Amino acid sequence: MSQPAELCEEGRLALIRDVLERIGDKWSVVVICQLDDTTRRFNELSRMSSPITKRMLSATLQGLERDGLVTRTVYDTKPPRVDYALTPRGISLLKVVRELAGWAEANAAGILESRSGYDAR
Amino acid sequence: MSQPAELCEEGRLALIRDVLERIGDKWSVVVICQLDDTTRRFNELSRMSSPITKRMLSATLQGLERDGLVTRTVYDTKPPRVDYALTPRGISLLKVVRELAGWAEANAAGILESRSGYDAR
Repeated sequence: MSQPAELCEEGRLALIRDVLERIGDKWSVVVICQLDDTTRRFNELSRMSSPITKRMLSATLQGLERDGLVTRTVYDTKPPRVDYALTPRGISLLKVVRELAGWAEANAAGILESRSGYDAR
Repeated sequence: MSQPAELCEEGRLALIRDVLERIGDKWSVVVICQLDDTTRRFNELSRMSSPITKRMLSATLQGLERDGLVTRTVYDTKPPRVDYALTPRGISLLKVVRELAGWAEANAAGILESRSGYDAR
C-alpha cells in the first residue's frame, strides 16, 4: 500500500484525472462493457448501445482505439466488415470499472441516505 | 464476476457516473488522500492541499460530509477546533481510488505511446 504522500503527489493525481476523464465519459463505459470478451461489429454496437448516434459511437470508438483500449479490424468484404474488440489494456480497464461499479452499488443507498440526513439538518 | 449485460444496465451506469463525478472532482481526491487514516484540522488541510482556496476547501469538505465520506467534529475551544476524518465509507472509497491510481500509473506510458502511434498514422 502506497503512502498518502505518494498518492497525493501532483503527477499521480493528474494521471488519475486523465483516466477518470476517459472512463467518466458516458459512452466509453457503455462501449467497453458491451465489448467485454467479445468481438462486435459497428452496427451491432450501435444497436446495443442505443440511443447513441452512429456519429457519437464512431467518435467514442476512435478515442478508445487511440488510447489502445480497443482494436479495429477491417475485413475486405462487400460491404466491408469492421470488427471491434478490447485489447488486454481495455480488459484490465474493464476490471477496474467493475470494481468501481461494485463500490458504487454497495454504497449508493448509504450515500443517498447520508445526503437526505445532511440536507434535513 | 457480473455479466456484461448487468454492468451495462442503465441504472448501474448512472451510479458509476455519479461516483466518478465525486472522485473525478479534483479537490475531493486530494482531500480524501490527505485524510487517509489521520484526523486533520481545517487549517492543516488548507496548508497541505495548496493551492486550494479556503472557500473551495470548505465546499469540498461539505460535499464529502454530505456523502457520508468525511466526519466533521467541532470542539468547544477558543478558537474552536474543527477536525475532519474519513468515515469507513470514505476509507473504502480511498481503496478504490488507490486501485484506479495503480491502473493509471501502470498504463500511462502505454496509453501515451498508443496515442502518438495513432496520431502519426
